[in-house]
Amino acid sequence: MSNKVIPLKVAVVGATGAVGRELLAILASRKFPISELVPFASARSENKLVQFNGKNIPCQVLKPGCFSGVDIAFFDASDAVSKEWAPEAAKSGSWVVDNSATFRLEDKVPLVIPEVNGDVLKDRIKKGPTHLGWEERIITGPNCSTVQMVVALKPICQKWGLKRVVVSTYQSTSGAGSVAMDELREQTREVLAGKKPQIKAFPHQIAFNAIPHIGKFSADGYTSEEHKMVAESRKLLGLPQLRMSATAVRIPSFSSHAESINVECEKSFDLNEVRDALKTQPGLLLEDNTSENLYPLGIRATGQDLVYVGRVRKDISVDNGLNLWVVSDNLRKGAALNAVQIGEMLVSGP
Amino acid sequence: MSNKVIPLKVAVVGATGAVGRELLAILASRKFPISELVPFASARSENKLVQFNGKNIPCQVLKPGCFSGVDIAFFDASDAVSKEWAPEAAKSGSWVVDNSATFRLEDKVPLVIPEVNGDVLKDRIKKGPTHLGWEERIITGPNCSTVQMVVALKPICQKWGLKRVVVSTYQSTSGAGSVAMDELREQTREVLAGKKPQIKAFPHQIAFNAIPHIGKFSADGYTSEEHKMVAESRKLLGLPQLRMSATAVRIPSFSSHAESINVECEKSFDLNEVRDALKTQPGLLLEDNTSENLYPLGIRATGQDLVYVGRVRKDISVDNGLNLWVVSDNLRKGAALNAVQIGEMLVSGP
Repeated sequence: MSNKVIPLKVAVVGATGAVGRELLAILASRKFPISELVPFASARSENKLVQFNGKNIPCQVLKPGCFSGVDIAFFDASDAVSKEWAPEAAKSGSWVVDNSATFRLEDKVPLVIPEVNGDVLKDRIKKGPTHLGWEERIITGPNCSTVQMVVALKPICQKWGLKRVVVSTYQSTSGAGSVAMDELREQTREVLAGKKPQIKAFPHQIAFNAIPHIGKFSADGYTSEEHKMVAESRKLLGLPQLRMSATAVRIPSFSSHAESINVECEKSFDLNEVRDALKTQPGLLLEDNTSENLYPLGIRATGQDLVYVGRVRKDISVDNGLNLWVVSDNLRKGAALNAVQIGEMLVSGP
Repeated sequence: MSNKVIPLKVAVVGATGAVGRELLAILASRKFPISELVPFASARSENKLVQFNGKNIPCQVLKPGCFSGVDIAFFDASDAVSKEWAPEAAKSGSWVVDNSATFRLEDKVPLVIPEVNGDVLKDRIKKGPTHLGWEERIITGPNCSTVQMVVALKPICQKWGLKRVVVSTYQSTSGAGSVAMDELREQTREVLAGKKPQIKAFPHQIAFNAIPHIGKFSADGYTSEEHKMVAESRKLLGLPQLRMSATAVRIPSFSSHAESINVECEKSFDLNEVRDALKTQPGLLLEDNTSENLYPLGIRATGQDLVYVGRVRKDISVDNGLNLWVVSDNLRKGAALNAVQIGEMLVSGP
């Protein structure tokens, strides 16, 4: 934002959703330099008030010209909304920080986790938004299940190389939005009361169940969530051929995703050196003391900013094998916090 | 049971526990040939009535001589109870079908899933219990998380060979007994009511959480549950060097375990041939039609007898890679049903 005086005019698209609300709270708590906040929501939520820094601000609907004067627009709505309106925002001169999947894999669009590959933004920030083509003002954040995995894999990748990764996820309902969290709560009450639970947000009952199905199925049997984890990790780590297989599973938790990650490294490692490398990774906290039953837990990660890693152990079933248990708040580091951190890079300069 | 006239005197040790109650129901529904049922429980449950075939039978406590005249004793109590009393039962002339971990890995003790390796019992059954040493009358069933995995792996192992297996589990609270199921129910109510949940049966809150800790931790960072899965699978499949890595995780479900299994086969396979092989495996049902959102679910498997397999897909990150999602009722095929099926083999002869 080197050629713009702060504070800034900031738009949040999807301000009433699960990620949008979290984003507003994080912008406020991290004192993001905002002169004017413009929350956008769907027509259903037009004029609905969102709280920001003690003020109630009415939501607007997206319409041509609505991004006029906006410096940074955070998109936390659907892929379709980003597809239609992110270019409009960028063309009006604004940075766009998009959390949807729409542009993530496009060659010229940066996919960014600041602690992992923030340097890919340096040149653009140095030039400043007014000296960029509109397409260059669109920056994307990864899928929530990708973010936490890649933050944990990054230091391992740097020191020992990644040969192959097998991951199984334990994803919370908040990844499907606040309606999905409500459904877990409601279904849970219904099951405990001996009633047949109502099913709307998920393909099957989620209360007291595990559903191995997030996103849409492809012909190869994988879901879109599983494909995202592989493709986005490759782009983030700069390893287009990285061998990875994912199984994405929804479990009946409200927030924070967990992941069981099996890694084959290129080089042999000492487990204490792995722990040391994890400890030096920004944005990561090692929680690994089995003698005190200390390992990452979703209920503890919820509302926190870090990626938590534990159950670090050698897998002797393969050369240079390693197992990890990785947990993070999917609405925060997995989405809203990561977007704000990208916004902070844009503000603070190269 | 070739040298004994049926019906039989049958003992159930741990008759009031989660597995014990399931075992009584299965013995009744499968019309196991019983002349007299003797339920055993801890001193706390002495004289507590258990229902069997419409009768109420008072529980007895274990004491010297209590297995006199018993033909088959099912043990569904703790490792410590089996260690002390299974030899006593066997010495009194009874077959012992033990679901504890105590004897499973002993060289001379058969570890049995009838559909997988039932043939290991043939010689003993042919001889009959009176012609065996007492140690030879002890038969064991595997850990619940092992059973369902090995039923699914068996047909793949036979046709294509197993090079390496990486498994992550999604295990229900019933695996920790009925007290643990009660705790899930109670904690869930407390969390929904905004109260701090009481923690007793698990190391941490299980309601709306995932706990990567089942059993006890070893110095290598693995839990006893994870070690069991590896060691028992090797014995069941007759592959003492099988390369396998397990991560065992408790999730907030009441019953049925799920498993995300990644397999490297020795030989290349056609995916349709894998499906066909799975379809021919006794005790297994393929539930795999992603276009209809059909895949195994714990809530549907509960109370059922089969191992359900779905999400069958190639893993192209490795040669001959395969992913599976495997679900079964851990109290039934994972414990009680498997034990009754072993009992049926002992009754029906070689």
